[in-house]
This record gives sequence, C-alpha cells and structure tokens, in this order.
Amino acid sequence: MSGEFDLIRWFRSQSHPNARVLTGIGDDLAILRWRADELLLAGCDQVLDGVHFDSSLHTPRQIGRKAMNRNLSDCAAMACVPAAALVSLALPRSQSMEYAKDLYIGLREAADVFDCPIVGGDTSTWDGKLVVTVTILGRTDGIKPVERSGAQIGDDLYVTGPLGASILGRHMTFAPNIALARILAQDAYASAMVDLSDGLSRDIRHICYESRVGAEIDASAIPIHPDTRKLTDGKSPLWHALHDGEDYELLFTCRGKDPRQDDVLKEQVFKIGKIVERLGVRINTEAGNHDLQPAGWEHTIKS
Amino acid sequence: MSGEFDLIRWFRSQSHPNARVLTGIGDDLAILRWRADELLLAGCDQVLDGVHFDSSLHTPRQIGRKAMNRNLSDCAAMACVPAAALVSLALPRSQSMEYAKDLYIGLREAADVFDCPIVGGDTSTWDGKLVVTVTILGRTDGIKPVERSGAQIGDDLYVTGPLGASILGRHMTFAPNIALARILAQDAYASAMVDLSDGLSRDIRHICYESRVGAEIDASAIPIHPDTRKLTDGKSPLWHALHDGEDYELLFTCRGKDPRQDDVLKEQVFKIGKIVERLGVRINTEAGNHDLQPAGWEHTIKS
Repeated sequence: MSGEFDLIRWFRSQSHPNARVLTGIGDDLAILRWRADELLLAGCDQVLDGVHFDSSLHTPRQIGRKAMNRNLSDCAAMACVPAAALVSLALPRSQSMEYAKDLYIGLREAADVFDCPIVGGDTSTWDGKLVVTVTILGRTDGIKPVERSGAQIGDDLYVTGPLGASILGRHMTFAPNIALARILAQDAYASAMVDLSDGLSRDIRHICYESRVGAEIDASAIPIHPDTRKLTDGKSPLWHALHDGEDYELLFTCRGKDPRQDDVLKEQVFKIGKIVERLGVRINTEAGNHDLQPAGWEHTIKS
Repeated sequence: MSGEFDLIRWFRSQSHPNARVLTGIGDDLAILRWRADELLLAGCDQVLDGVHFDSSLHTPRQIGRKAMNRNLSDCAAMACVPAAALVSLALPRSQSMEYAKDLYIGLREAADVFDCPIVGGDTSTWDGKLVVTVTILGRTDGIKPVERSGAQIGDDLYVTGPLGASILGRHMTFAPNIALARILAQDAYASAMVDLSDGLSRDIRHICYESRVGAEIDASAIPIHPDTRKLTDGKSPLWHALHDGEDYELLFTCRGKDPRQDDVLKEQVFKIGKIVERLGVRINTEAGNHDLQPAGWEHTIKS
C-alpha cells in the first residue's frame, strides 16, 4: 500500500515550472501572481463514473483528459486563456497507484496543450465510485470575456461544428475550441457564447435566459454529425443534433458581421438561426415552426 | 422532479453582491477583478460520504459547513483572506431539492463569516454517494503567505489549541483559525504553518519535508483535548492528541519571538517543541525520547 503523499509527491515531480506559479503542489494552497490588467475567470466541473464516463469502458487516461477538457471548454465558452488548474480525485479503494498516475497523465496531457499548469488539489480514497473534479482559472490576456448575457435582438446564431451522437465516442475525445473562441471574441464576432455540453435545445436557453431574448433556429441549417445515422434508437439525426449533449462545440451570437466571410472562419462556423424578441426557442422546419423544448440531458432532483 | 437549473437559479438568488465579482453564478465561468498587489492563492478540498462525514448521522447543513470550513482552514494555514469559493456537488439521486438547498445554506453560512462569495460550481446527480468539493481562492491583503517551507533550525514549534478526539464532534463544528493566523503572520510570529487535518504526527512532516529540517516534540507540552478521555479504545489521551486528525488547529514555527508574551495570543498558543537539524520527528517523554511515526489517517492506495 502507498499513501496519498507518495502520490502527491509523484504528481509534483511531473510539474513544469511556470512564471505565474510561485508555489504549486505541496502547500495548503497554491500561490500565483496575477497581473493588474487581467480579469480572473474561475469555474469547476466534475466527471462522475456512470454519468460522464464508464470506468469499465474508458481508460483512466481518457477519463483524465475528458475531466480537464470539459473545464478547458468552459474557457473556450468565455474566450479566455487557461491559467492554472486544480484537481480533486475521489479514488475507489480498489484502484491502484498506477491507475491514479494514468488519470493524472490524462489530465496533464490535456492541460499541457494550453500550457496550463496543475497547481494543486486533493486526493482521497473511498468506497464510492471515481469522481474527478477540476477547477480551472482563466485569464483574459487582452480579450474581453464573452458572456451568455450579450445577445441582442437581431443577432445571428452560429455553431462551430456538426452536432449529435457524441455518445459514440466524441464525448471522450473532443478538443476544447479555445483558439477559435479567441478569434471570435477578438474580432468581435461573438456577442454571447456558451459551449454545448447539455445539448443545443438546452444550452441555447442559457443565452436566451441571460440575455432576455428568444431564438429561432432553422432546422435545415443545423450541421448534423454523420455519427447520428449510426444510432438505431428510432430518433432522427436532427433530433440527436438538437438534443444530444457533450458535443463541446461553441454556440454563439454575432451582430452586424458575418464570420463566414473570414477566410480562417468560413469552414468552422455554421449559421443556424437568429435572436428574436419573442421569448422562448422556436424551430423552423419544412412542416412549419414550433416551440423547441429541451429533451437532452439534465440532472433531475426530487422536489 | 426539478432540474439542476432550478437549483442553480435558487443558489444564485441567494448571492450577495460583491465588488470583486463581476459575474458570479450563471455563466460558464465566474469573472473576478484581481488587484495587482494581491497574490492569488487557490486550492480545493472535497468531503466524501463515509470518509469525512456520515450522511446518515450529519445534516446537509452540517456537511456543507464542514466542506467550506475545511477550505477556509487552508486559508488560515497560509494566513490569507478568503476571496471567493466554487462548489461542486455530486448528489445521490435519492436526495431532494430541499437537501441540496440545506447543503448550500451550510456552505454559505460558513463562507459568510468571512464575507466570501460563492461564485460558481457544478451540480450533478448520480447513483453514487454524496461528494462536496469546494475550491477556495484567497488573497494576501497585505500579509505575505506563510508557507510550509519557512521553518529553520532553532525555530520553536507551536499549536493553537488542544488536540485529539475531534471524531466526537469537533471535526464537524470547528471554526477556521483565520483571524489568529493573520495576527501570527502579520506580526512575524509564524515562519512556517500548516493546519492539522491529518493529525500532528503526520502534518508536522509537511513542515519538516518542505523546510528540510527535523522536529522534536515535548510530549508533556502538548495540549490534550479533554474529549480524548471519553474515548474507550484503549489508546492514551496523548496517543489521540498525536495521531487523531481533523482538529483544524494551526501548527506553526516561530523564530526569535515568543507569541506567549503577546496579550492577545498568550491564551491561544502552546509551545510544543522545536525545529532541529536531524531529519525526522522525535518525541521526548518521561520514558526517554523516540521517533514519532505517523499513525493517523492517510488515504492508502494500492501499489
């Protein structure tokens, strides 16, 4: 048997130096320098065995990557740059030191893509199932964060890639759209933005709610992922594109500009509708238009 | 059934305005202002059902308070001021909305003591047991953080209160020693510091390891909590004071000053030993001196 301190020492031995980090793993809290002209963005997001991954199917390295990438995708949604991460692990007692190290390697290789140091965290073992909780700190680095509340009536609505059927694999392997988000924010293409974790029909409501507007989606304009045709549950590819979660594409609104006229962006954005005054979300199909209610994933809680 | 968004909206309705928080709960990430002259401290700490609390014995409000106070105690250990917190909840599906709200009330009332806003987080339901993960951000506010690495040979070693038998109740009800820590750091009493979460015999090793020194403890000087006499496991009160975890008192080293000569501090600090060159931890008892090995709580992981 080894102890958590052996593991933490190993985590620490894997750390790169970083000018922002005065003290990383190994004290009660990490100590970071922060520049006066940088806003600090912060959030946390957990992955749970049986909900966000299946430990009997996915390797610890895949699970670690997903846990980190979900948080990096939140940085994309705000168009900020990842600055540092913290990792909290609740490890089943049945798992080995090797398993914990592989988890950490997955977390680290996802963070390394964005030069984002892991500066601290917490490790416990228990009789329960695996929980990986990542906290992400982001910095503005000269670009104003894009909030959910910035949409206005008349804005166009875009997504950054084909949607649906992520359950066939992409929910574990997606790459956070940070570089694209930074371009969209820097060139004032994005007035409001969110990443699609719970599904288009659900996540669009975040923008509508925060911006106090409605939205109209054109069904024929939605880019549908070819994997949706592999699903045999009787639901249409469009249904999956509208309601499936964990695509981690960006949904954004844009005012008075067309990002499709930008050579870099034109292959990466799809106009799917517009922001309207009438509250709620409506979808236009060949058969007419109707209210679009969320049917994707939501954690339900007993009243 | 209610959804996580109803719950998050309720969390948000409970938020106070705070000048540091530009955007709190409700976006992909929170947005905070940070002052140029403030270092940023960050850490996270989780509490797990069956490990750090027992959901069949403890109320959600008690569990919430403990989850937040553990993190606030990490602020005490660094002598920083809590600036903001994030909360990640993995809720058993069997629990109600009311339960989640009571958890949040516990988290909030602990944070409110230090005017620390909860600015974001993550809520999921699952088939597993309750996990509450808190991330804490701290700020220096004019006082240099006290790290584990600051102890030098010849420093005296102090604790801030009686130790042992926290399992009889104090592990749920302790108050983070932030005010005391700030005095110790501001008046240069503390050269290295840690909070006692895993037990004196284990946590002292953090200071020794980071500072590359050894320590000698005088058994007769250790303040022993009277609750240790209520335990009937055959171990002595001294054993419990040395090895029990979750006292959340501060352990600190002090150089060339005696905090017991300060009117405010004299009732609050107990000198228990000193820092020495010889690596390892030794304890002096009436029967002679010997190595002190950790016997308290550690999360063990299979090799």
